[in-house]
This record gives sequence, C-alpha cells and structure tokens, in this order.
Amino acid sequence: MKIYRFPSRESWNEITARPRLDLTQLNDTVSQVLADVRRRGDDAVRDYELKFDKATLSQLAVSEQEMDEAEAMVSNDLRDAIILAHHNIKVFHVSQRFVGQKVKTQEGVVCWQKSVAIERVGLYIPGGTAPLFSTVLMLATPAKIAGCHEIVLCTPPNAEGKVNPAILVAARIAGVSKIFKIGGVQAIGAMAYGTQSVPKVYKIFGPGNQYVMAAKQQVSLDEVAIDMPAGPSEVCVLADDKANATFVAADLLSQAEHGADSQVLLITTSETMLQEVQKEVNRQLECLPRKEIAAQALANSRMVLVSSTDEMLALCNAYAPEHLVIQTEDYAQLAERVVNAGSVFLGPYACESAGDYASGTNHTLPTHGYATAYNGVNLDSYCRKITFQHLTAEGIAHIGRAVELMAEAEQLAAHKNAMTVRMDTLNIEH
Amino acid sequence: MKIYRFPSRESWNEITARPRLDLTQLNDTVSQVLADVRRRGDDAVRDYELKFDKATLSQLAVSEQEMDEAEAMVSNDLRDAIILAHHNIKVFHVSQRFVGQKVKTQEGVVCWQKSVAIERVGLYIPGGTAPLFSTVLMLATPAKIAGCHEIVLCTPPNAEGKVNPAILVAARIAGVSKIFKIGGVQAIGAMAYGTQSVPKVYKIFGPGNQYVMAAKQQVSLDEVAIDMPAGPSEVCVLADDKANATFVAADLLSQAEHGADSQVLLITTSETMLQEVQKEVNRQLECLPRKEIAAQALANSRMVLVSSTDEMLALCNAYAPEHLVIQTEDYAQLAERVVNAGSVFLGPYACESAGDYASGTNHTLPTHGYATAYNGVNLDSYCRKITFQHLTAEGIAHIGRAVELMAEAEQLAAHKNAMTVRMDTLNIEH
Repeated sequence: MKIYRFPSRESWNEITARPRLDLTQLNDTVSQVLADVRRRGDDAVRDYELKFDKATLSQLAVSEQEMDEAEAMVSNDLRDAIILAHHNIKVFHVSQRFVGQKVKTQEGVVCWQKSVAIERVGLYIPGGTAPLFSTVLMLATPAKIAGCHEIVLCTPPNAEGKVNPAILVAARIAGVSKIFKIGGVQAIGAMAYGTQSVPKVYKIFGPGNQYVMAAKQQVSLDEVAIDMPAGPSEVCVLADDKANATFVAADLLSQAEHGADSQVLLITTSETMLQEVQKEVNRQLECLPRKEIAAQALANSRMVLVSSTDEMLALCNAYAPEHLVIQTEDYAQLAERVVNAGSVFLGPYACESAGDYASGTNHTLPTHGYATAYNGVNLDSYCRKITFQHLTAEGIAHIGRAVELMAEAEQLAAHKNAMTVRMDTLNIEH
Repeated sequence: MKIYRFPSRESWNEITARPRLDLTQLNDTVSQVLADVRRRGDDAVRDYELKFDKATLSQLAVSEQEMDEAEAMVSNDLRDAIILAHHNIKVFHVSQRFVGQKVKTQEGVVCWQKSVAIERVGLYIPGGTAPLFSTVLMLATPAKIAGCHEIVLCTPPNAEGKVNPAILVAARIAGVSKIFKIGGVQAIGAMAYGTQSVPKVYKIFGPGNQYVMAAKQQVSLDEVAIDMPAGPSEVCVLADDKANATFVAADLLSQAEHGADSQVLLITTSETMLQEVQKEVNRQLECLPRKEIAAQALANSRMVLVSSTDEMLALCNAYAPEHLVIQTEDYAQLAERVVNAGSVFLGPYACESAGDYASGTNHTLPTHGYATAYNGVNLDSYCRKITFQHLTAEGIAHIGRAVELMAEAEQLAAHKNAMTVRMDTLNIEH
C-alpha cells in the first residue's frame, strides 16, 4: 500500500483518483452482439451461449424441475442464512415505501406524487466461479416489494447448461418471476429488446464485466433505463487511535479480494494505527485463498495519515467512496458530516460484509466517485413518482392570470389559450 | 390528425410509436467540442460562443450589474407571476422532503437512509426566441430546497452577449448561485469538466436541442449524472362524452405548438367528442401565431376511438405519455389506474399549462416512452439517499453466522474473515 503522511491538498487528486474506465474500445463488439440479438432474438442468444459459455441450450428458461433440483443441492444451513438475509433486506426495503401527501399549493390547486412500480425489470447476475446469489437477494427483494409485475433474471449457465443452485434458491425466495440461462452482452440485449423467450423490460439492474457494463451503457442510450454506471468496488476506512487494527485490516482485505482493480483507502489520524493496520494486513493476507488478487489490489491502495478529524472527513468526502467504514470513538458525530458515500458502516462491529450480505441494506452501490451524484439501489429504484394535480374554478382564479402572463412571455400562445378558454368559461377576469 | 376507430391490439404499436431518436450521427461533432472544452477550458468556450452564438464575451459569468439591469427590464406583472409560480413550486417540492427512519432489522442491527443534497449541480436553459424562464424555476427551485451548495446555470447569450432578463430574474428568485453565458455543447462540457470560470458539477439538468442532448448523453457515460434522456414533448388526453371539446382541443394544441416533432394523442370513448375536438382543433389552430409548427405536429398526431374505458387506459399506459390529461367524469377513478405517465392532470380545469408554469408540479418530465422507467424531476433528483448501519455485539450474534456462510459459499474468504475476527473477539460461537 502506498503511504501518504500529511499530504497537501494538491496531492488529494492523486489520492482520490480512480483508474479511468474507457469502454469505448469494446463498443463495436458489443454493438454487433446487441444488434444481432435485436434482429434474431432467441437464435442469436443461443449462438452466443454456445460461443461464450460453451453451453448448448434447447430451453433458455430455467424449468420448475431445475428449480426443485436446485433446492435439493443447497445445504440447510446456507438456505437458512439466505432466508435470514432476505428477511432483513425485506424489512429495510419495506420501510422505504413512499406515502404521498396531497399538497394544496393554492386554494383549489392540489398536487401530489404517487409511487408506482416499474412494470417489468431485468436483473443480471454474473456467472464465474463465485455465484453471486447475494446480489440476487439485493436486486429481486426490492423489486418484489415495489410490486413490479415481471421480474426477469438472466445469469450465464455453465458448459453443462446449468445455473448455480444457490442463485436459483435465492431467486425463488426473493420472488423472481422468470429466470433465463443467458449471460454477457446477449443477456443485456435480450432484456432490452425482448426475444421470443425473454420479455422486454424497462430497466436493467446488476453488475457484470466490462462487456456487460458497455452493453448496459449502450442500451441505456435508447431502449431502457439502467441502475447506475459501474466500476470496480472500493472501500474507505476512517480510523482513530482507538480503532481495532485487526478489524480495520480485515475490512480493507475484504474489499481487496474482490478484484485486482479494487480500491482500498485507509484514512487515519494516528501514525501508530497506520503501522498496526499495515502489519495486520500483511499478516491476514497470507491466510487468504485469493491472496494474489488482494495483493494486486493493495499495491494500488493507499494509507493516508492526516492531522485532524476535519481533514479526514474532507478527504473522505472528496473520495466519495462506495463503502465507508467509520471506526472511531466519535463515529456518530462523523456520520453526520458524510456528504459523499454509498453506504456507511458505523462503529467497530459494522463490518462491510455485514451489509454485503445480511444486515438489510443494499449492496448495489455507486463506485468510481459516482456517489457524488448517485445513490445505491433502493426501493425507489424500482418505482416512479408520478405527479398528479387537480384544479377547481377557485384554483384557476388563483393561478390563471400568472399562467397566461408566463406563457405569453415565453411566446407560447396555445399554452396561454388553454388557460384563457377555461377562465372565459368560468367568467374569471384576465 | 390520423384517426383510428376501434383499432385492434396489433395496431397499438403503430399508434404508440415515437420517431426513433438517433443521435449517433452527431457524436463526432459533439465529442470534438467536448474534448476541446476539456482541454482548453474558457478559451474553447469563448471560441464556440463566437462561432455558434456570434457573441464576443470577455466575461463568461453574468455580473451583478447585469442581474440588476435585468430586474428593471421585467414588468411587475410578469415578476409577480414568476413569484407566484415559484411559491407554488416551492410549496410542492418542500413537501417532498425525505425523513429517514431508523429500522431495526434484528436486535442490534439498525439501518437507515439519509437524504443528502448533491453538492454541485448544473442547469442548462436553452436560448432561442422564447426564453424558457419557467424551466429555470422548475430546475433551480428544488435544487435550492435540497440544499445543493452550488447551483450553476448556463444559457446562451444573444449576439450582443446578453441573456434574456426574465431568465435572470427567475434565476435570482429561485436561488441560482452562478450564471454563465454559455450555450450548446460547450455549456455541457464546461459544467461536466469544469473550466477556469465554470465549476465542475456532479449532475446536469435541463432541456436542449439534439446537440445538447447528445452532449449530455456523452458526458453521462463517464463524467456526470444527467436528469433523464430527452425527446420531443408529448401529451395524451383521455376524454369521454361529457368532456369540454374546446378545452380538449386547447390542450392538444398547447402541446402541438412546442415543435413540429411534438406528439399529441387523443383517446376517447365517444365518436361525437372525437368529431367535436377535431372541429375545435381546426378552429383554434387558425388563431395561433405558431400555427405552422402546430399543424406539422398535428399531421403526425392521432385521435383514437376506443370501445371502453378499460381499453382507453390500457392504450394510454402502453403509450406512457409525458403529460396525461384526463377529462372524464370519473377522472378520480381513472387516475388510480395510471401506471405509466410523467404528470397527470385531472378534471376539466387542470390544463397542462397550469402544470407547465404555476401549479407547483415540475414540468421536466420523461418523454419518448421513458415514463415506463423514469419519473420527472423532483426533490429526489437533487439528493442521494445514503444508507447507514450500526451493529452491536448482539447484532453480530444475530447475523454473524449467516454472513460467514454466505461469504464462504461465494468463495470470498476475506469477507468471511471480517466477520470471524469480530465474532472471535466477542466470543460468539460460529
């Protein structure tokens, strides 16, 4: 890890920098696959599944029988863990339900918002060696609570044409409507355009490799909405001299093991803590099966010693981390001053992995500094707040003249006239 | 207007179709301007202002003196109208303030959301003959309520280097921090990257021509968030046999005058109403200064006679209009069944122009069918909901084992270990 001691403000840009994500070189490949899926539907999807996942698929949809088989393949302990996590995620996201209120802006002018679920959503779950069934819970649980009619999930099969059983079990628990054995760009295309098997959706959620990210970007320009732009995962830990160095090191490493491009940042007010954490990181690293990946991520990571709590917070807000772990005595006060972050973990026992799996918060969060403008996935991500308004004659009397004047000043005579004909009918003076 | 009587479901795709928006042919021009602004900052901006707006600018920022001059140039009547509209917009958007609640998902596990304003936002207001000062109110008022620290506004100057006074007056009333005389792609680039004069922002809002839309798309892929994808404005009116044909026609025309590519759709259960509205449209059209534009929009527009209220709603939801005006006796019941729309206007007196200017709702709304997945601009658009969590030893006892099991099943040993070290410290059984 790179160590910065009392860095000047000028060096903050360097400390908070992320590797630039340039997906444009993938655009041609990605757009060809997308266009082919758009044109040939299921046939194209099957061809790409054979090519990229080595899977020959007669049926793209996962059958009920396969769902039942999966149930038998997941241990009771793991199922119970998934059920507990689902419960907590559900409780937290149910609490986010929006209740609109009718607002009288003038006598006779009533406006309100109503939250309505997006009718059809698509969830993408990457394949690979580690099955991300936790992400199934994170994406499908709020979709179900929101009331989305159709919750489509795509995930790549293995060469035998099978999907990891834990993914299927989590999908059933969380209430996914339809699961398809489709991965990569072809999955994004299938959900964006619809095929003979896969329903077209209005919004696509979920992580993926650079091709998936590029495909999500491309379809978001025209066809569908997406959850958020993606980038490598990252954590920032704030620690004072009272923090537990073992905990801090474990939290840094849990981020570092995600990928060689993961970002890890420690900001501390204590030189002793910095040194202890460094030692602990090296010690714990040795025991990790994903040691090489974590070591690569750490090589690009930073430990920063700052002179005050104010500076610690200012640097952290400038970084805008996806995950922020605050292990200081005064964590409650510091929490109030967080401006840019995806999800914040307070105190010694709130490790990032608690929120990654089971505390109830969502783990689909803005990376790459996007926390400055985006939040993580929440119940709102699956809804739209539609506005309604009702006006009476009295309402027209209150705002009619203002509408006429403003429309006139914007040279929109028909806008004005729509109000004028109502005022005339109601004998309201202009 | 094209008339469809009792169309089959198969023809709905045709009725609800929008012109395809293909901005890719603009991408090269747009990306060159963006790259130049990124590289050369203010100098590039000044060059493009001279080239595109014929304005020679020494200062890009609007001065206090210019603000004061603008005040003197706006009539008292118009200022009062702007103040009334601002009041109503403020009342409605203040009511949207989010109050998070702490949620105990298990004993010792507490999660919550906090809404935090985006620190710096950029608003784009197009120029042209009609100054869109109403859009200044719609974009800046909620930004101010949210508590955004910096609210930057860019709008093109005329050849004399001046900005329309109503725009400046509205900006001052709504609380804009800094106004720049910059238009088009160079404005989007200046706000996305920052220049010597213009602060970099985290999210860009506002309408614009195709170049502005393409620029917003491009910068949204990497640099900043944007409010929503854009398209031509549109209205759908639902009318029964009791509707006022004069009102209906006026509402259709107020949309049609926006531009030749505006979309106007009437869905009615009454043949008589269809014919009366058609007559009224033709009659009112003659009196409009923007008659030619409106006539072009009408040529592509549709009147649809359907056999039932159910069909009326189903077709309307399939269309997913930006604006939906419901002029039926049972408008309150119909409102409950709206699934896809940006903003809904209920009853005979809620004309679209009421919401465009002064009722309090926002007029920046999803077009082009995007209402299936997006909502209009609201207070949330200027905030992020950051999640927080706090765990106690008891919390760890409740969820620790589940986290360990799930992390293990996802082959993320360091994630597991971050929980294990805490459980060990607390002597909690695994």
